[in-house]
Amino acid sequence: MDDQDRPERPRVGVVGLGAMGLGMARSLRAAGYHVGVHDLRPEVAAGFAREGGTAFASVGELAAGVDVLVGVVVNAAQVDAVLFGPDGAADRLRPGAVFVMCSTVDPGWSAALEERLAEKGVLYLDAPMSGGVARAAAGELTMMTSGAAAAYAVADPVLEAMSSTVYRLGDRAGPGSKVKIVNQLLAGVHIAAAAEAMALGIKAGVPADALYEVITHSAGNSWMFENRMAHVLAGDYTPLSAVDIFVKDLGLVLDSARPERFPLPLAATAHQMFLQASGAGLGAEDDSAVIKIFPGVELPGPKPTEG
Amino acid sequence: MDDQDRPERPRVGVVGLGAMGLGMARSLRAAGYHVGVHDLRPEVAAGFAREGGTAFASVGELAAGVDVLVGVVVNAAQVDAVLFGPDGAADRLRPGAVFVMCSTVDPGWSAALEERLAEKGVLYLDAPMSGGVARAAAGELTMMTSGAAAAYAVADPVLEAMSSTVYRLGDRAGPGSKVKIVNQLLAGVHIAAAAEAMALGIKAGVPADALYEVITHSAGNSWMFENRMAHVLAGDYTPLSAVDIFVKDLGLVLDSARPERFPLPLAATAHQMFLQASGAGLGAEDDSAVIKIFPGVELPGPKPTEG
Repeated sequence: MDDQDRPERPRVGVVGLGAMGLGMARSLRAAGYHVGVHDLRPEVAAGFAREGGTAFASVGELAAGVDVLVGVVVNAAQVDAVLFGPDGAADRLRPGAVFVMCSTVDPGWSAALEERLAEKGVLYLDAPMSGGVARAAAGELTMMTSGAAAAYAVADPVLEAMSSTVYRLGDRAGPGSKVKIVNQLLAGVHIAAAAEAMALGIKAGVPADALYEVITHSAGNSWMFENRMAHVLAGDYTPLSAVDIFVKDLGLVLDSARPERFPLPLAATAHQMFLQASGAGLGAEDDSAVIKIFPGVELPGPKPTEG
Repeated sequence: MDDQDRPERPRVGVVGLGAMGLGMARSLRAAGYHVGVHDLRPEVAAGFAREGGTAFASVGELAAGVDVLVGVVVNAAQVDAVLFGPDGAADRLRPGAVFVMCSTVDPGWSAALEERLAEKGVLYLDAPMSGGVARAAAGELTMMTSGAAAAYAVADPVLEAMSSTVYRLGDRAGPGSKVKIVNQLLAGVHIAAAAEAMALGIKAGVPADALYEVITHSAGNSWMFENRMAHVLAGDYTPLSAVDIFVKDLGLVLDSARPERFPLPLAATAHQMFLQASGAGLGAEDDSAVIKIFPGVELPGPKPTEG
């Protein structure tokens, strides 16, 4: 397609087709976008191509043809590889294209990334998200964004297609990631607290389903209690988000505060609980499996399949 | 009134007219009950009498004339004084009357209390509550109850008048208090986590109102974050529930688990945070004042009054 007659709708690519990225690519398709994708696992990208997208063998090839490149990878190291690795996107994106960074990263690192890309004429949005796999697939994420007006001017319709709410938190990178850090602190502590509280109640002899019913209608409720303790009730630890994600994210929360000498007693304690779970071999299970660190608790088993 | 022609509606008394008890007494009046009350502060009971209730100078006098006595005092020691202190209720309640215990107490202590009252022919409901001052006044509490069917048979309409939801968790005392302990663990940890997260975000330079807006629409939300951080935004630490209540309640949570050698890392950490706040002179402020333990955070000030 010739730049001269570029349509109003930006050309969009998605890098990273994990549970979140795949849902986001699909919700962009559902919104009418033609979506190019790349993933380190070629078979995953090929699967999306069979749904009607276009798979690219390298990030660079994908980047060369888009106005907006959405990065949905696990951490800062992977973002770095996407942009600056072999055949990376930073040298292939056209001047004025936008890289939308959706990972949970250190806010200072995100701010520096904006400057590194500016040297190449590439615009940047600091755009972590919240909402989980189901909302990603429905195009109903909450996005915590900040960046320059010029970046929003290009990427806005893409953000809108993936999200029910796009918060604009500032005119440069940093605030988006700062708010995501605050959210992950709460999310991690709430999952660990839900596990601690449910374990205590079950140990005391209260049926797990009664605990769930009462707490979800009381002042002790949280979004995470309601969502994750349903997995415990079902005895289903299939990872939607894994224990090791919170080992990483709470580690990032703590690292972000340490240079400021800012104490985070609850985040530190919850981090230890996820480390204990991961060290016990539960790292790849659903994050609600942190409840298994508590001793002598008879947890609900998996529901029998009908036969 | 002669027991022979006792109406279907039980005669009810409320002991303890703090913020919760006064709201509950009022919601009973609103439901059409004639309500007798007693409080250690005679002027508070007299104030309720001016609204149309009846004030009694002693618990014993109040207890002698009721079918259901609702105890809304601070802790187990006060419950003990109400029942077994000078001119206490235990010897004055008629056989078959019900004592409804709404305080947060050790579950084992509550179970033992049921037996002590049974020796006097008095029925008992283990009936802690959740919902806060506004819901108490609206008759919309959540009650976490357990006890004998005979006790429910008498007290049921009284519970219904005070609550939007009455959970029945077992046929003897104990489970009600166990679930309340689980709720208080979560409530205390969530308030402290909300404070820790907001303090981190504000320290990082994100405006407090933006943090509140994003988090209350994200997976990091909790009932307590939404409720208590509104006080921080308003700069208003007028105590609805004080820091010292969670010094007490999280202490009770920890004490209840220690005999079982059950570890509660997050409850222990949050307890230390409330102790630090109380030790710094904040014990009588709203529990959201636990945010003041974090160093170098410029919290929102009180809103200027119009004039």
